[in-house]
Amino acid sequence: MEDKFVIGVDLGGTKIYTVLAGADGRVLTAVKVPTEAAGGRDHVLKRIMQTMEQVREQAGVPGRLVRATVVGAPGPLDASRGVVYQAPNLGWQNVPLTQLMEEATGIPARLENDANLAALGEHVYGAGRGETDLVYITVSTGIGSGMILDGRLYRGVGGGAGEIGHMTVLPDGPPCSCGNRGCLEAMASGSAIAREARSLVAQGKGKAILAAGGGRPEVDAEAVSAAAAAGDPEAIFIIAEAARFLGIGLANVLNLLNPALVILGGGAMKIGSVVFEGARSEMQKRALAAAYDRVKLVPAQLGGRAGAMGAVALALQCLVPEGMAGS
Amino acid sequence: MEDKFVIGVDLGGTKIYTVLAGADGRVLTAVKVPTEAAGGRDHVLKRIMQTMEQVREQAGVPGRLVRATVVGAPGPLDASRGVVYQAPNLGWQNVPLTQLMEEATGIPARLENDANLAALGEHVYGAGRGETDLVYITVSTGIGSGMILDGRLYRGVGGGAGEIGHMTVLPDGPPCSCGNRGCLEAMASGSAIAREARSLVAQGKGKAILAAGGGRPEVDAEAVSAAAAAGDPEAIFIIAEAARFLGIGLANVLNLLNPALVILGGGAMKIGSVVFEGARSEMQKRALAAAYDRVKLVPAQLGGRAGAMGAVALALQCLVPEGMAGS
Repeated sequence: MEDKFVIGVDLGGTKIYTVLAGADGRVLTAVKVPTEAAGGRDHVLKRIMQTMEQVREQAGVPGRLVRATVVGAPGPLDASRGVVYQAPNLGWQNVPLTQLMEEATGIPARLENDANLAALGEHVYGAGRGETDLVYITVSTGIGSGMILDGRLYRGVGGGAGEIGHMTVLPDGPPCSCGNRGCLEAMASGSAIAREARSLVAQGKGKAILAAGGGRPEVDAEAVSAAAAAGDPEAIFIIAEAARFLGIGLANVLNLLNPALVILGGGAMKIGSVVFEGARSEMQKRALAAAYDRVKLVPAQLGGRAGAMGAVALALQCLVPEGMAGS
Repeated sequence: MEDKFVIGVDLGGTKIYTVLAGADGRVLTAVKVPTEAAGGRDHVLKRIMQTMEQVREQAGVPGRLVRATVVGAPGPLDASRGVVYQAPNLGWQNVPLTQLMEEATGIPARLENDANLAALGEHVYGAGRGETDLVYITVSTGIGSGMILDGRLYRGVGGGAGEIGHMTVLPDGPPCSCGNRGCLEAMASGSAIAREARSLVAQGKGKAILAAGGGRPEVDAEAVSAAAAAGDPEAIFIIAEAARFLGIGLANVLNLLNPALVILGGGAMKIGSVVFEGARSEMQKRALAAAYDRVKLVPAQLGGRAGAMGAVALALQCLVPEGMAGS
């Protein structure tokens, strides 16, 4: 029997990360390039195709042996139809991505939400190996999640499951980008941290944060993180508050879903133990003992590779029926 | 092939409801008796056995044709081991229920959380027929839930999933029975409504509620409901606030799980549209459009029969492997 291969693509606003793997799931080659989203839809599509050719050529794998491609993209999207509805980072609206890719390459293509793929990637290749019920949560500028429930990626009826960033954790809290108030994303994301720091600076406070940000009043989460690392109490307070709300969100997930594992990923984890331990401590306080006692809270293992590895895992799942029929 | 039958038992703090069904799921006989929990564990067990005999005798079904029994009980419990850890309504602690029942009857017995069974009952026989992703929420003295995800009852790693009543919806809110603050149950349950009303009465307000409760200062949710039905603005405000927080909890479930259906059951639904429409309106406000547009919010159809019907459905699932092996 001839070898079979799959390609996983993580399409982000700033970079495209593309991986070629064998039918056994082993990664043979990987390529990362800037997305160059400003170049427009067709330019980005061409760059995706180029990375797919590069991983094939580097591995010496002819196109006819690549049996499936999965692309992860930021939502909202329709995975079943393969259409990206809206991707503000890419400037895309209603792009029939899988159709365009299949026309260009002849390889069956499938689209999936990037947070779902990151959850699947950690499940198959990372921190979630062997667990059947896990929630992967990514905290960076925004907050998203993906879930493996009863051993399978859980998508919900419209593929929209996992929007934990828009769970209300403070009903009359600050406005969120979604139009609601007090969402987890409005309380615990990098954007929320930056908003609180800017508000301090605007009041003439937050000198250490301002200095860490190079003196510009539009300080960001990185400046707060740097000031906190240097021991600034104002910066530490802002981050601890964000972590506390993250812990509330985690406790809500524990009480509702009783998962075996919660995996925390995303840029905010780089801030370190103030976030991780702060969230864990609040989660413990608010989760029922039966749920807390059964869960492990762990950092993500795959970092920026999680999405592409999840794409590989999903592509391999797509191979199974064909493999069974053909062998 | 001989006919096969199953028995479903809903064991509550005040009544035992027991149902006999055929292998096709059709209910043949049902019996409801008071639990008489004050009589102690062995007395309650004896009453369960008596109801099982009654439904058999009324249907003329010999014991050897009953192939499985499922009992629903209030948690916390260990479904896999068949042990009720703690059931305050029954005064039980660490009761190996399925073992005791199997020893007494010779029929294979299985234990399940009552909210999970109610969800399954509504899924198979009630408001949730044909849906693969649904959340059943019961609002009465407390708030509980059960979930059918990807077509299957979702239990979580320790069987503890569905504790939506202990989702934090107001971080510094009033204390909950679980020791936490601002849980959904502390904001939107019958107990929460009673607490708010008693607080009003203690301040010398809430005259209409007090009158509806017969003049005793320990007014309950029924008194608030009656006063609200008669147009009392204080009572309506208390119920509307509870409904608003219920809507926040529902929106959180929508954003996280993207279900096709949310079924609302329990005594609080009898209060009527102030609760149902209040919750729906807040849910709409706070859920992402993609999740709200795909969900139906409906009242439960089976009322007090949901748990026993879920027990029948689960017992029939237990028959399947045997049926396949034997046929």
